[in-house]
Amino acid sequence: MNRKRVFYTIGKIIMAEATMLLLPLIVSFIYGESCSMDFIITIGIALAVGGLLMILFRTENRVIYAKEGFVIVAGAWIAMSLIGALPFYISGEIPSYIDAFFETVSGFTTTGASILTDVEAMSKGLLFWRSFTHWIGGMGVLVFVMAIIPNFSDRSIHLLRAEVPGPVVGKLVPRMKDTAKILYLIYVAMTVIEIILLLCGGMPFFDSVVHSFGTAGTGGFGIKADSIAGYSNYLQWVITIFMLLFGVNFNIYYLLLIRHFKSVFKSSEVWCYFGIVGTSIAVITANIYPIYQDIADSLRLSAFQVSSIITTTGFATADFDLWPRLSKVVLMLLMFVGACAGSTGGGLKVSRLMLLFKIIKKELKRMIHPRSVGAVKMEGKKVDEKMQNGVLVYFALYVVLFGIMFGLLCFESFDIETNFSAVTACFNNIGPGLSLVGPAANYSIYSSLSKIVLSGAMLLGRLEIFPLLLALSPAVWSKK
Amino acid sequence: MNRKRVFYTIGKIIMAEATMLLLPLIVSFIYGESCSMDFIITIGIALAVGGLLMILFRTENRVIYAKEGFVIVAGAWIAMSLIGALPFYISGEIPSYIDAFFETVSGFTTTGASILTDVEAMSKGLLFWRSFTHWIGGMGVLVFVMAIIPNFSDRSIHLLRAEVPGPVVGKLVPRMKDTAKILYLIYVAMTVIEIILLLCGGMPFFDSVVHSFGTAGTGGFGIKADSIAGYSNYLQWVITIFMLLFGVNFNIYYLLLIRHFKSVFKSSEVWCYFGIVGTSIAVITANIYPIYQDIADSLRLSAFQVSSIITTTGFATADFDLWPRLSKVVLMLLMFVGACAGSTGGGLKVSRLMLLFKIIKKELKRMIHPRSVGAVKMEGKKVDEKMQNGVLVYFALYVVLFGIMFGLLCFESFDIETNFSAVTACFNNIGPGLSLVGPAANYSIYSSLSKIVLSGAMLLGRLEIFPLLLALSPAVWSKK
Repeated sequence: MNRKRVFYTIGKIIMAEATMLLLPLIVSFIYGESCSMDFIITIGIALAVGGLLMILFRTENRVIYAKEGFVIVAGAWIAMSLIGALPFYISGEIPSYIDAFFETVSGFTTTGASILTDVEAMSKGLLFWRSFTHWIGGMGVLVFVMAIIPNFSDRSIHLLRAEVPGPVVGKLVPRMKDTAKILYLIYVAMTVIEIILLLCGGMPFFDSVVHSFGTAGTGGFGIKADSIAGYSNYLQWVITIFMLLFGVNFNIYYLLLIRHFKSVFKSSEVWCYFGIVGTSIAVITANIYPIYQDIADSLRLSAFQVSSIITTTGFATADFDLWPRLSKVVLMLLMFVGACAGSTGGGLKVSRLMLLFKIIKKELKRMIHPRSVGAVKMEGKKVDEKMQNGVLVYFALYVVLFGIMFGLLCFESFDIETNFSAVTACFNNIGPGLSLVGPAANYSIYSSLSKIVLSGAMLLGRLEIFPLLLALSPAVWSKK
Repeated sequence: MNRKRVFYTIGKIIMAEATMLLLPLIVSFIYGESCSMDFIITIGIALAVGGLLMILFRTENRVIYAKEGFVIVAGAWIAMSLIGALPFYISGEIPSYIDAFFETVSGFTTTGASILTDVEAMSKGLLFWRSFTHWIGGMGVLVFVMAIIPNFSDRSIHLLRAEVPGPVVGKLVPRMKDTAKILYLIYVAMTVIEIILLLCGGMPFFDSVVHSFGTAGTGGFGIKADSIAGYSNYLQWVITIFMLLFGVNFNIYYLLLIRHFKSVFKSSEVWCYFGIVGTSIAVITANIYPIYQDIADSLRLSAFQVSSIITTTGFATADFDLWPRLSKVVLMLLMFVGACAGSTGGGLKVSRLMLLFKIIKKELKRMIHPRSVGAVKMEGKKVDEKMQNGVLVYFALYVVLFGIMFGLLCFESFDIETNFSAVTACFNNIGPGLSLVGPAANYSIYSSLSKIVLSGAMLLGRLEIFPLLLALSPAVWSKK
């Protein structure tokens, strides 16, 4: 492995994080908060660590293959979380470093699971940083770095592939760097539109920005104890719609921009995604109507919670842990489905599940007619055996890792519903689970060990397992 | 599809069941019980239904392909359970037919999940029939029929393949019928040895026979409220050892018979199986020692429960629902592992899991070295891509179906631990779960609908998903 280049690139990314930290620093200055100093210290540490890595591992060898890609992505995400946790810890607003790390991993991975028991007591600068990590993590740390830093070699398709969610990663345009730029431009534009629409509804500027960050990254950190429940119906609907939009494959927006409407219309993943959303909203609306006795309220609450869960955002306007069992089961299933591939959402992804069902169908057919050669098609293209195998292996690994992490949590004394939903919510980057980690509760109940396990779950989920798993494999680190 | 032959064969199997019912009839005669009449009525019905099917669908076309094999197996198991439930229902000892059906499916599938609240109040004839279904179901209904009925065409490899558990089915000897006979001879011999050893320990004859049936089929129906806990330590150890033995691939015994000791010694599945058993016993013994304060007791209880769960038998000598969390987690994991392929046990099977991990390892290696062509080997032989794919698809289907059945149970008002372990225990053919369906409880709490779902889970588990699923597919039934 090209170790030098790996550490050099991680150093570069830490330097980039130092610049990102300027934004919350400015916010804390504006509000005249004491946490400004904590941001300055963190920026200093980031510059020192990043600079040292860049100097120590300077190399002319720019070759980055798949394995370097995996290690860079895994290393960068862990390094960014380790440093990003410092402001919380130094300020003393999160007294335990493990807690601060959990919170930051939850931010970058756009999970939104929190250990804070009183979010409203936090200073504005830290709240801003917390939500900003969602925004950075949503589209991808490396995609961001690629978009802004010059001289990134075009080998970096391996980086993009390791970071962007979903079974397939396509370049939008021949040059990788341009693809990254286009993705980020769409991302910025949509975020700005949401901020404006929220402002129009009377939401304060600070609130509009952080909530738009949380929506864009499908993260879910809020700044109120009751998440979004206290805002007006208009504001709730705006967030509902934008959550759904950020759960769509970003290629679709690119296709819209270049006016390929036909391709958009034919995207089976998008149809399936909105089909699942529509059906779930209808079922839950009917199921919770007896509680709220009002069709508009039931629809609004159902639509918000469904959008929040399927896109793996995790905002809440109702404590769905108190809803009838059918609604809870539907939401629990949506937690695993997740959003579209190539969106900012987590979970298994709609297209991966579609592929899984198509493969199963093909295999069942082959059992009846042993000599048939069934092909699996997706978006009009034939899916080759290698990719089919990849989807099956991903699913198997997903289930096995889920089992292991669930097993590790069982040393806690909580009920199975709590532990099971905690792993589900963290592994799929959602945020709130059920029972003791439901929307009205938080993750502070867990021990440090379990918080590390759950942090691992969030990273495994966001990076889609392979980068983190491979970075831990000795074979990757061998000199050969 | 050759429909006529399918129904004809199912008719033949129902006729075979009529003869099987003679045994419990004799038992009830010996004990002078009133349920003799119920067995006579049931035998009458079986002869009528079976005979009618054989007359109506008489055909010279003996061709049985894979799809006919699946439908025959699925149909035969359902038909046998429907008829096998009659004695319980007609006698009034199980007043609800759905309950009687659940109990019979649980018997044939060797699950051992019971709806009986007072097993000791049942008449001997019915208790015998209940345990006898385990014995028949363990080695397979069709294997039995194949072994005893003449004129079964050699095409029946498709039947065997659809009924014998595990990813690979090999013929022991060139002629299918002889393979079936050898398997049953080994099965009978081991059952007889267990009966003798139990008798030597002072267990009454009736008890010895039914418990040996329960062990041989890895079923788990007992005849006491406290399962096996009331018997002596010697008897508990005998049952422990025989549970483990019946969880071994029967090919191993054949290899022992023909003195191929080297092949036995090299079987990686058997090594892995006993490795898992040994490790689990050690962990649980250490974990429960503080409760029992005696190393011999802790070891005996741990060994019994581990053997009972991994072989998916389901006998109990302790209420493991009250054990520490670590022990419960280990047992829960063993529930999914299951016994060796080609044994009478259920679960995912040791060899299938070994293959799964080997495939995942190969794929991870391929991600690091994209041009490597890793081969997966099992028992010294290369496993082809088609079979690897089969294992992955089986696992995916297993998880998806598990999720669906768990979802269907959520209409019940029980806690998630109860429902989750109920599906686990039924789908893997174990019997007792945790919490409200723990070893000290039973399944009578569920609604009729849930009992049907759980009956489906047991059949899907025992027949390894495909036969039942394909029998429900319209493509199989098409005339083409």
